[in-house]
Amino acid sequence: MTALHPFDPITPGEIQLAVKILEAAFPGVPLRYKKIDVNEPLKREVVPYIEAERLGKPFPPAPTRLLQVLFHRLDNGAFYKALLNAGTRSVVYAKQLPKEVQGPVDADELIEIEQLCLSHPAVQAEIAKLQLPPGVTVCNDPWIYGADDPKESRRLFQCYMYVVTTDHPQNNHYSAPCKFSPVFDALTRELVRMDYLPGGVDAQVTETQPWKMVETIQYAHDLLTEPLRTDLKPYIVQQPEGPSFHVQGNLVSWQKWKFRVGFNTREGLVIYNTTYDGRNVFYRLSVSEMTVPYGDPRAPYHRKQAFDVGDVGFGITANQLSLGCDCLGHIKYFDGYRSDSKGNPVQLKNVICLHEQDNGLQHKHTNYRTGAATVVRNRHLVVQMICTVSNYEYIFAFIFDQAANIELEVRATGILSTVPFDNEKFGTTVPWGTNVGPGVMAPFHQHMFSFRIDPALDGFKNTVYYEDSVPMPEDENNPYLVGYTTEQTVLRTSGSANTSVERHRVFKIRNDACINPITYNPVAYKLQASPSQMLLAGNRSFGYKRAEFATKPIWVTKYQDDELYAAGEFTNQSKQSEGVEKWVKRNDPVENEDLVLWHTFGLTHNPRVEDFPVMPVERVSVMLKPDGFFTKNPALDVPASNQSFNRSTLHPEPAACCAPAKVKL
Amino acid sequence: MTALHPFDPITPGEIQLAVKILEAAFPGVPLRYKKIDVNEPLKREVVPYIEAERLGKPFPPAPTRLLQVLFHRLDNGAFYKALLNAGTRSVVYAKQLPKEVQGPVDADELIEIEQLCLSHPAVQAEIAKLQLPPGVTVCNDPWIYGADDPKESRRLFQCYMYVVTTDHPQNNHYSAPCKFSPVFDALTRELVRMDYLPGGVDAQVTETQPWKMVETIQYAHDLLTEPLRTDLKPYIVQQPEGPSFHVQGNLVSWQKWKFRVGFNTREGLVIYNTTYDGRNVFYRLSVSEMTVPYGDPRAPYHRKQAFDVGDVGFGITANQLSLGCDCLGHIKYFDGYRSDSKGNPVQLKNVICLHEQDNGLQHKHTNYRTGAATVVRNRHLVVQMICTVSNYEYIFAFIFDQAANIELEVRATGILSTVPFDNEKFGTTVPWGTNVGPGVMAPFHQHMFSFRIDPALDGFKNTVYYEDSVPMPEDENNPYLVGYTTEQTVLRTSGSANTSVERHRVFKIRNDACINPITYNPVAYKLQASPSQMLLAGNRSFGYKRAEFATKPIWVTKYQDDELYAAGEFTNQSKQSEGVEKWVKRNDPVENEDLVLWHTFGLTHNPRVEDFPVMPVERVSVMLKPDGFFTKNPALDVPASNQSFNRSTLHPEPAACCAPAKVKL
Repeated sequence: MTALHPFDPITPGEIQLAVKILEAAFPGVPLRYKKIDVNEPLKREVVPYIEAERLGKPFPPAPTRLLQVLFHRLDNGAFYKALLNAGTRSVVYAKQLPKEVQGPVDADELIEIEQLCLSHPAVQAEIAKLQLPPGVTVCNDPWIYGADDPKESRRLFQCYMYVVTTDHPQNNHYSAPCKFSPVFDALTRELVRMDYLPGGVDAQVTETQPWKMVETIQYAHDLLTEPLRTDLKPYIVQQPEGPSFHVQGNLVSWQKWKFRVGFNTREGLVIYNTTYDGRNVFYRLSVSEMTVPYGDPRAPYHRKQAFDVGDVGFGITANQLSLGCDCLGHIKYFDGYRSDSKGNPVQLKNVICLHEQDNGLQHKHTNYRTGAATVVRNRHLVVQMICTVSNYEYIFAFIFDQAANIELEVRATGILSTVPFDNEKFGTTVPWGTNVGPGVMAPFHQHMFSFRIDPALDGFKNTVYYEDSVPMPEDENNPYLVGYTTEQTVLRTSGSANTSVERHRVFKIRNDACINPITYNPVAYKLQASPSQMLLAGNRSFGYKRAEFATKPIWVTKYQDDELYAAGEFTNQSKQSEGVEKWVKRNDPVENEDLVLWHTFGLTHNPRVEDFPVMPVERVSVMLKPDGFFTKNPALDVPASNQSFNRSTLHPEPAACCAPAKVKL
Repeated sequence: MTALHPFDPITPGEIQLAVKILEAAFPGVPLRYKKIDVNEPLKREVVPYIEAERLGKPFPPAPTRLLQVLFHRLDNGAFYKALLNAGTRSVVYAKQLPKEVQGPVDADELIEIEQLCLSHPAVQAEIAKLQLPPGVTVCNDPWIYGADDPKESRRLFQCYMYVVTTDHPQNNHYSAPCKFSPVFDALTRELVRMDYLPGGVDAQVTETQPWKMVETIQYAHDLLTEPLRTDLKPYIVQQPEGPSFHVQGNLVSWQKWKFRVGFNTREGLVIYNTTYDGRNVFYRLSVSEMTVPYGDPRAPYHRKQAFDVGDVGFGITANQLSLGCDCLGHIKYFDGYRSDSKGNPVQLKNVICLHEQDNGLQHKHTNYRTGAATVVRNRHLVVQMICTVSNYEYIFAFIFDQAANIELEVRATGILSTVPFDNEKFGTTVPWGTNVGPGVMAPFHQHMFSFRIDPALDGFKNTVYYEDSVPMPEDENNPYLVGYTTEQTVLRTSGSANTSVERHRVFKIRNDACINPITYNPVAYKLQASPSQMLLAGNRSFGYKRAEFATKPIWVTKYQDDELYAAGEFTNQSKQSEGVEKWVKRNDPVENEDLVLWHTFGLTHNPRVEDFPVMPVERVSVMLKPDGFFTKNPALDVPASNQSFNRSTLHPEPAACCAPAKVKL
């Protein structure tokens, strides 16, 4: 047993330990590490442990600390997955994966491909054809290749090329996309093919032509032609008595909440073992997958479909945050670790931040007879991670409040993925994208997220159901035709369900064994879902088959270890998903069971020109709210909001000469 | 011409002026004033005036300053509406309204009815039957009567009675509803009927029985049995250099925005003449109506259907806000005025507040090659009003941001409207409500809001259309089946439309005469609607006929003066609506016209027990966002977020002894 908690992220020592164990298991074989991370602990071992912790009882044996390693043998190129027991320092298994399975991109690989591309003679030859003026260069974004061939088993990258018009660390190359795009084999390092990109409104391509210089649209403040605003005054958050949270290791306590901040390279931020006032609420919360399929129908764009969790990972793309930029107030940061391709631990400094925010009013009531008011403000605790996945940024925040709500807020920002488009002639547009600058168009696309909710409402066996609001029948019980009621549908076996705005459908999770003494119904939380358009790709397309999780807003599965990712474990160049859509087919009983609720929500993002060159945040919010879990508003005991506590400032009134004139009588 | 701006709210002098004019017009006739307020200025007069203002050109004649008065003649009870010209101090008209038309409740009337009820012998007799112990009393909430009889023309109030278990200014009487409910005629002051309320799961009623004392559920901090939380630390917003806004009279300037804060007793807060960077955006924004129909099918609850704007008014119910309670930071307050029933001006102090908020990130991008990041925070300007409509509170905020978005945020809080329910036997529930305490149940209901949007995108003639995202046909232009595009439908004549999550339907407002030089499409804003379940009441019910605006999420009408309120001018005891559903039937052309877009959104509110005794805010948000209105992100020139500006605080790291242990190798 180590002093680590079962939910603690991997330590640098564990990364080194994993390498030692594997070096011993593969003596003399050169290995390239794609991933060294903790493996999700076995739930059957963890639950007794965290229950002992919660109830202050003697601890059972510590859960097995498992590590997971993805690696290539450099002698024969074979791709392996290994499970290691950190306690016994032994290999549980190390299995070679089928040839068509591609692991995620790793940080070193991305840089290698980028350099390989730029230095390749064929690419150099294309660049030469651009006849760029001095000081103007070319860069590239290696893209996840996607899929369009069932027989493809090479590890491929599609490099999208851009002209770099200015030597500035924040030059927006997405404003100047080139019309050629080489494809490389990442293992053999060979150029597989030079793709050419359409220039007009159809799929026709041409040979590379000399570059026509156009004005690029820049976001960096140094590169703007207009002056910055000078009338924004500082806004400072002070917490003179410190924050209201307490942090011990990765355990956070705040306003009756307790939870553990988890971190792994794939999902990044994970919220473990959430309790409120000592009661179990959620075992595990995470964004399990996200896919971004593009709607431009033309080759090679039809393959553009990133799985940002499975293909890359929100952990390894998480920004290293800095004080004063990303959050305001009193900030606690958490670090993470990843391994590099050689197995060295790499610290990911400040990848998660924790801070409080004021969010306006929590509740208010004024008794109009007496004028007496109760006003309570809404303090939030925000746990946040910001991921840069090439062009885009995603801001993920789990937000806890004092009324026992948990919000998952997603903000999309960053830069649109653009394509070249000869749009200099007035009126030239395509029906699947938006012109965002001279020579550049941003195709329509969707961002589809999977929120994985592993509930534990007063225990680990729960039930999911949905409740529709429906008019009562027009009969003697409803003589005035205004009555309405609810219809409940329990999901008894694993499956999927649709949202319904028209029926005000609400999905709830309840514990049938715990009856609320006031409502006489089982204690429950509801999911305030974000009803969204589902995947638009046709159901015979690879885009659809690879992302079936994104075809239904709600999935319920019976819990099984290793079923963590909505589109399956290996999404990179996947031909079809191996995720929730497969697991629900077991038709497991999920009533009063250890179940997982998966909510797919998203943004159909038909770019606005205002989203370029960097996108104002687009915000989506999903909430988990108690619904009969307590016997009354759980925030009643939050102290009142008053001036001695809040110390606000009154705006000075103008001198009398500036006051609006009054009508004379 | 006065020094008032056409959009300025009424002044105390104007209230006095109106009374003078009417006293002269009705010499010797005693009048009871229900409302004295500005009448919306005539748009054809205002537009040249505000355009001169915007363009710095010579002013045309000032628009006619009109005042509107609703009053009763006390000699014969007749109800009048008068329009007065404040400039010429004359009566434009004073017309007697039909007998069945009821004006809104006024503040004096509410208190009069409350007192009338409590002092009435028949009510006293019922109270006596309760056999209340010493110190326990009864209070009542006079309710808007609603409608269930096409021939009813009396002015009626239904008084809901509650036991007051403790003499405290914030006692929650809604926890102890009585089972009798007198109905009064407000003009004759007669008791019309004593209604009895059902006690069980059906509509059966009984004679008043002795009161069974039960525990009441209280929200006031003094009355809680549990201690208050002690671990919430102060959170202080400081703006040492002052706010970024400037206010002159009711004109607000902030971050390229300019608008005027309007106020009237009916809608409360109105946003007038919004421009961004000197360009016209919206002429007028307001919450034009709200109705709350209840789903309990039993008499007399079938008549419970408040129109909080039309029956009462958000202006007269707006809270007088105080520093440190309702907002945080540097706050500017605006006052309003109403008249009392005698025609005296009553100051409504601090009914609107204005302040800045930080709202996390506005945009961020990190160039992963260089690590260089642009981070810009999202400063908000919030214009807010909080209304107490008997039991409920509504918080309305118009929120402006630096990327040219305007959000209408509605938060519902306050206390559920409750009914008596004999629920002491375990398991006793009704299918149209939630038990929220011993002897008390909160029926299901809906809150349906109408957001009235009078656009002026680069001019006063605009077009509304909607855009659906749809898969491309499976043909040679879409060989990989991933293509998708949009379908546009222009609303050419006045009418209604539905939202559609499945098709990601987005409603947009554009100016066909102004083509964006980058997108080649007309400049536009989009409405980020809140797709909601529409009215559940049957279409033959009074609940439906009175609130047709709440049966469709989108309405478009051609602008006409005096068409301001979605359910019509007089909603109190209305038998049917005279609002948008009538106006659209004119089939006016609305393409490239002066049009109004009305968005109905709402909450189907099946109460949670957690919503009692005071409800944690339920938040709904609707946004207006530029969509091709600019040529790029309009917030690019907002200065970067950095520590010297934001002055955040780093959470201290624990001493080494508390650090998580590392696995030893």
